[in-house]
Amino acid sequence: MSAIEDMLAVERSGTDMFTATIPFRRVPRLFGGQVAGQALVAACRTLPEPRSPHSLHAYFVRLGQPGVPVRYEVTRVRDGRSFTTRRVTATQDDRTIFEAMASFQNAEEGANWQPPAPDLGARPSRPPGVPHPRLGHVVNHLDLRPIRDHEGGWRIHPYWVRTDPPIGDDVALNAAALTYVSDIAFMANAREPGTDLPMAAAASIDHSIWFHRPPRTDDWLFFSAEPVANIGTRGMVRGAFHTEGGELVATVAQEALLRPATP
Amino acid sequence: MSAIEDMLAVERSGTDMFTATIPFRRVPRLFGGQVAGQALVAACRTLPEPRSPHSLHAYFVRLGQPGVPVRYEVTRVRDGRSFTTRRVTATQDDRTIFEAMASFQNAEEGANWQPPAPDLGARPSRPPGVPHPRLGHVVNHLDLRPIRDHEGGWRIHPYWVRTDPPIGDDVALNAAALTYVSDIAFMANAREPGTDLPMAAAASIDHSIWFHRPPRTDDWLFFSAEPVANIGTRGMVRGAFHTEGGELVATVAQEALLRPATP
Repeated sequence: MSAIEDMLAVERSGTDMFTATIPFRRVPRLFGGQVAGQALVAACRTLPEPRSPHSLHAYFVRLGQPGVPVRYEVTRVRDGRSFTTRRVTATQDDRTIFEAMASFQNAEEGANWQPPAPDLGARPSRPPGVPHPRLGHVVNHLDLRPIRDHEGGWRIHPYWVRTDPPIGDDVALNAAALTYVSDIAFMANAREPGTDLPMAAAASIDHSIWFHRPPRTDDWLFFSAEPVANIGTRGMVRGAFHTEGGELVATVAQEALLRPATP
Repeated sequence: MSAIEDMLAVERSGTDMFTATIPFRRVPRLFGGQVAGQALVAACRTLPEPRSPHSLHAYFVRLGQPGVPVRYEVTRVRDGRSFTTRRVTATQDDRTIFEAMASFQNAEEGANWQPPAPDLGARPSRPPGVPHPRLGHVVNHLDLRPIRDHEGGWRIHPYWVRTDPPIGDDVALNAAALTYVSDIAFMANAREPGTDLPMAAAASIDHSIWFHRPPRTDDWLFFSAEPVANIGTRGMVRGAFHTEGGELVATVAQEALLRPATP
């Protein structure tokens, strides 16, 4: 089992009930992208037949704790002819830490339109730099290459990323891996460009992903992000994943709590 | 009670349970924005103290039917010091038609940054045109003025809009009214610009709103929209509401099922 597959694995502990215990890794709270990825894996395991997830909406309700079992309870909202809908509630010690909804669709032929891709520059070719001082514990199963030097700060978008070691073709696992990645350093972009004031508190509030195409995370993906607004103590960011060929794979949006440090 | 307040009203029918029966109005299915707006009103009525909704994520799980009671069951996911989280399930005849999550926050001072507003042109001053041939039944309690002639087609964005008659200051009602408006003709923008092929099927799949500021729908709002992608049979659109002064009030995103008519 590759490292990322291990990070996203959940064990069945009942009908539509799954569990995972995420070990302590440098920080005393769970990484939201891992919880969201595991929730998506859990939801996928309740599908009567394999279908691609095409969207996921989640709230991070409470900070999750390492070392405490996370229980994912999946509710089968609808099993339709074309679409499947699932709800997932994640709890620790009977307290909800995460709520999500996800939708799945059979592949259907149709349109094939997207706006021009952003400038993707060259395919990542320089050797991976030193591990990011703060992201190290999150990215050791990914090859993650920001296109400019970020000097250890949180603003590392846009970056190229792929799973390393490779994870193969499994649809659920690829979608969950992209979900995992989509939360890495994302909320740092929810603020006014150029600012880097210290924050007293920063936490993801929600997370939305739309998979326009089934992702393949063994191939390089270009993850770009831009701020939507930062008003009061909430900031919002939106982002996109493109393939090397410029195909839009996924759109991401997130709101974050950003409490400035009072001087 | 103004027309829109009436459209968004729900009756308490139990603890955290609310009901509304939406009468038949020209089309044999419920307007998603009305269901989403009522769900938000229901969620607001379970708050221990008034708080502004700052985001809403919803799935339209099945088409809703006029004349059949819609039951909104609210789940109190969390009552936190700063944030409140609610889940709402809407059913008709015990079948889920709609699932939503919403989050609420106390007002907090902080940043005040947004990108420059789009060109809003002049304040709407021309007399309202004739009612839109297809939207008429939806907008008769709003003053809705597209900035260009849309010739009866669905692509009417950007448009100016306000509640008419006015609804006053109630925070929940204003947020629900914006929610209602945010689904009007929105998904028509989920397609390649310029195309207007006939669709065999078109339906909203999901709907997300982020309220950056508490909205006031008695004042003019400029509702703009742009396509994100239309790949396979799903199209995605994102949009924004700005005040006359250019303040960003809300961001909206939606994915829609768009099945082309086979020739």
